[in-house]
Amino acid sequence: MAATVRGGSLSAAAVTEAALERIARLNPVLNAFTDVTADRARAEAADLDARIAAGADPGPLAGVPVAVKNLFDIRGLPTRAGSLINRERPPAGADAVLLQRLARAGAVLVGGLNMGEYAYDFTGENAHDGACRNPHDPARMAGGSSSGCGAATAAGLAPLSLGSDTNGSIRVPSSLCGIFGLKPTYGRLTRHGSFPFCDSLDHLGPFARSARDLALAYDVLQGPAEGDHACAGRPVEPVSPMLETGLEGLRIAVAGGYFSRGGLPEAHDAVERAAQALGTDRVVELPGAELGRAAAYIITNAESSAFHLDRLRTRAGDFDPDTRDRFLAGALLPAAWYVQAQRVRRWYHEQVMALFREVDVLLAPATPCTAPLVGQKTMVLDGREMPVRPHLGLFTQPISCIGLPVCAVPMALPGALPIGIQVIAAPWREGRCLMVAAELERLGLARAPLAEPAEV
Amino acid sequence: MAATVRGGSLSAAAVTEAALERIARLNPVLNAFTDVTADRARAEAADLDARIAAGADPGPLAGVPVAVKNLFDIRGLPTRAGSLINRERPPAGADAVLLQRLARAGAVLVGGLNMGEYAYDFTGENAHDGACRNPHDPARMAGGSSSGCGAATAAGLAPLSLGSDTNGSIRVPSSLCGIFGLKPTYGRLTRHGSFPFCDSLDHLGPFARSARDLALAYDVLQGPAEGDHACAGRPVEPVSPMLETGLEGLRIAVAGGYFSRGGLPEAHDAVERAAQALGTDRVVELPGAELGRAAAYIITNAESSAFHLDRLRTRAGDFDPDTRDRFLAGALLPAAWYVQAQRVRRWYHEQVMALFREVDVLLAPATPCTAPLVGQKTMVLDGREMPVRPHLGLFTQPISCIGLPVCAVPMALPGALPIGIQVIAAPWREGRCLMVAAELERLGLARAPLAEPAEV
Repeated sequence: MAATVRGGSLSAAAVTEAALERIARLNPVLNAFTDVTADRARAEAADLDARIAAGADPGPLAGVPVAVKNLFDIRGLPTRAGSLINRERPPAGADAVLLQRLARAGAVLVGGLNMGEYAYDFTGENAHDGACRNPHDPARMAGGSSSGCGAATAAGLAPLSLGSDTNGSIRVPSSLCGIFGLKPTYGRLTRHGSFPFCDSLDHLGPFARSARDLALAYDVLQGPAEGDHACAGRPVEPVSPMLETGLEGLRIAVAGGYFSRGGLPEAHDAVERAAQALGTDRVVELPGAELGRAAAYIITNAESSAFHLDRLRTRAGDFDPDTRDRFLAGALLPAAWYVQAQRVRRWYHEQVMALFREVDVLLAPATPCTAPLVGQKTMVLDGREMPVRPHLGLFTQPISCIGLPVCAVPMALPGALPIGIQVIAAPWREGRCLMVAAELERLGLARAPLAEPAEV
Repeated sequence: MAATVRGGSLSAAAVTEAALERIARLNPVLNAFTDVTADRARAEAADLDARIAAGADPGPLAGVPVAVKNLFDIRGLPTRAGSLINRERPPAGADAVLLQRLARAGAVLVGGLNMGEYAYDFTGENAHDGACRNPHDPARMAGGSSSGCGAATAAGLAPLSLGSDTNGSIRVPSSLCGIFGLKPTYGRLTRHGSFPFCDSLDHLGPFARSARDLALAYDVLQGPAEGDHACAGRPVEPVSPMLETGLEGLRIAVAGGYFSRGGLPEAHDAVERAAQALGTDRVVELPGAELGRAAAYIITNAESSAFHLDRLRTRAGDFDPDTRDRFLAGALLPAAWYVQAQRVRRWYHEQVMALFREVDVLLAPATPCTAPLVGQKTMVLDGREMPVRPHLGLFTQPISCIGLPVCAVPMALPGALPIGIQVIAAPWREGRCLMVAAELERLGLARAPLAEPAEV
């Protein structure tokens, strides 16, 4: 799309109108957008077309419609973060830094996307804005908390979107909606201008319908720390060129133990098929994954509740009842639990770093199941009835806990509901995740077909 | 001393015997040592003398008697950390890394030193081992928690000692005993093989009776991280050569605001005299020092209590009653307080980093007063009766909270009880602290006279 626009054979204005038309037609079914920035999109597209006509280089994402989870600042709009309370905030004075970087590369913002309140969610249900629906079956969840990203990108309302991932919020909707999503290394992409959830674990990252598009977006998103204390601000390390090279020498293994059980057969089967296609039968165990997940739970609960404490005291009734319960529980945690959780996390990180001396890439399920129905509260895993919401993060949570880069790769068999796998690498090795994702796509196993939901 | 031993005109054995004799004579007054490692010291000295006779270079600290706070592992002894409970631990299998480095440089270990239980202390009083006493007036406190370091080095029982500083535990005894002490940047010296107190704030560092000795020890202590997750493991940056250069170009200022009030006149007068001698009348304010101190309180209380939680549950009666109360209070803290304290600390750190663009070295009081009497519970500060123990750290706590390097410099007027100042620099700039300390010594203002307490 960008190449066509840069070449002048299709105008950015035409691409934008097509996207706005598709949003107008399908969003009533999907409820992916909470804000459509049509005027801004048209102005940006016109500006791009003028620059192209004048011979300027409009950038690698010229004319590509992009949308962002509504916890990213969008100039002129209050940053909702999926909440009711935040709508009273003054409009943001500037775009989030990552959105600025996309815009500088020629992307055109078409809107803000639905999400679970304050990102404390895996379902994509939202008491204020209604549930975001899965474009492959609107009776089902899109997955959360970046639900709008999953739905909008899978249905082609925005070929590119930006979300956040604290315990799985990029990878879960990617898996359930059947698209590619990248959660980079903790500290890689600046979070400046986004509304926080849990400082120790918050990551931002892109969604797309191919590994190549994902890499292109990621290369544009890299850069200086710009106002994020946790961002390492490392020099840009472009990964797009790496997708042209083969996987020779890359030591790939399946994550065993914790990751080999607890999901439905389709989750583990997706990993099995990927391993087979990549020619590996090696299985390694991530020591401490279960403890790591427990630590991530406590850290998330404690930090997010501390952050929302004043709002809980004064505006409890204005929270989504589901997230309010989580925040209230977190407000009662003893400090010793949190301190211990951070110690466990450090220990677990050391164990896994040692493992990465032996292996480069790990394969694991992304979600234990395909998309549950909207409103579904429990599911049966390993013969036990379990609550849906927390267990959607069963396999993602232990990975983000220690900040490893992961690409969620859609692996559904034709005709089946989407399900993804996680391709995981050592810190700062995003390129390896994307190389394996691209190879699975080349082999025909990974596919993100455009979803065409029936209109209302 | 080391030069004489290396030159062969005095044997390490003779130096060691003199130290052991002085310990035997004065320790009954001071109660600085909990363990005297006489056999080991004699063996090490003999070995050194043999190597010198054979023409080997015995290292820059050849034959120098050294003692360590008893939270450092000493091969063959249980690591007490000032507690009763820890005495049941198996003997340490190896020396702490920093002690190994001193020994490799030729230092001879003469023993382990008294301290406040589990380092949660500023007084040097200890229910199990008795109070460590100030060699300048044995009716008075040595200051804690590295009380034995202050007393042993001030009285020449060990010209060099190693202690730890979480909120001031190197700087407070340095000030009250009238010696030099260095708390390096957080993350500079590995803590491997020492018993922790509060991971986020624990630092290790040396004590000596001159800036040059302190620099010599510090240069030997630098090195790889070796098992400390928080240690940056930076390359050795020798500071001893820096003491030969002048202070030209160094922007020195007095810390105003919070640090200009609250102490007794002698504390602020010491800073005033140093500033005058160094030719500066500049005053800058550390924004957020008071909040930083509050954050350090909560972080210390929460982390140390989490660490001791099992011992509190099963062995509460075996704690020092004073520290037990602190740990029990910490076990009741909500996680939200701790999370908020870490956020405040991060904010405060950013404020102070901005300040260091304008200034290189800050001068502040080390303690608000000279040594209180052993057993003294309150003192009058700013017209209000305050508890002694926490307020000894009034000026040290906000500095260690953000890990800045500090040299405590003894500034007492002749005939008066000791009192020190803090010479503070930006992270990783220990050399600047030591340069200013050496200059104050050269000018005759900083002095650490050998204390000669009356024998029992």
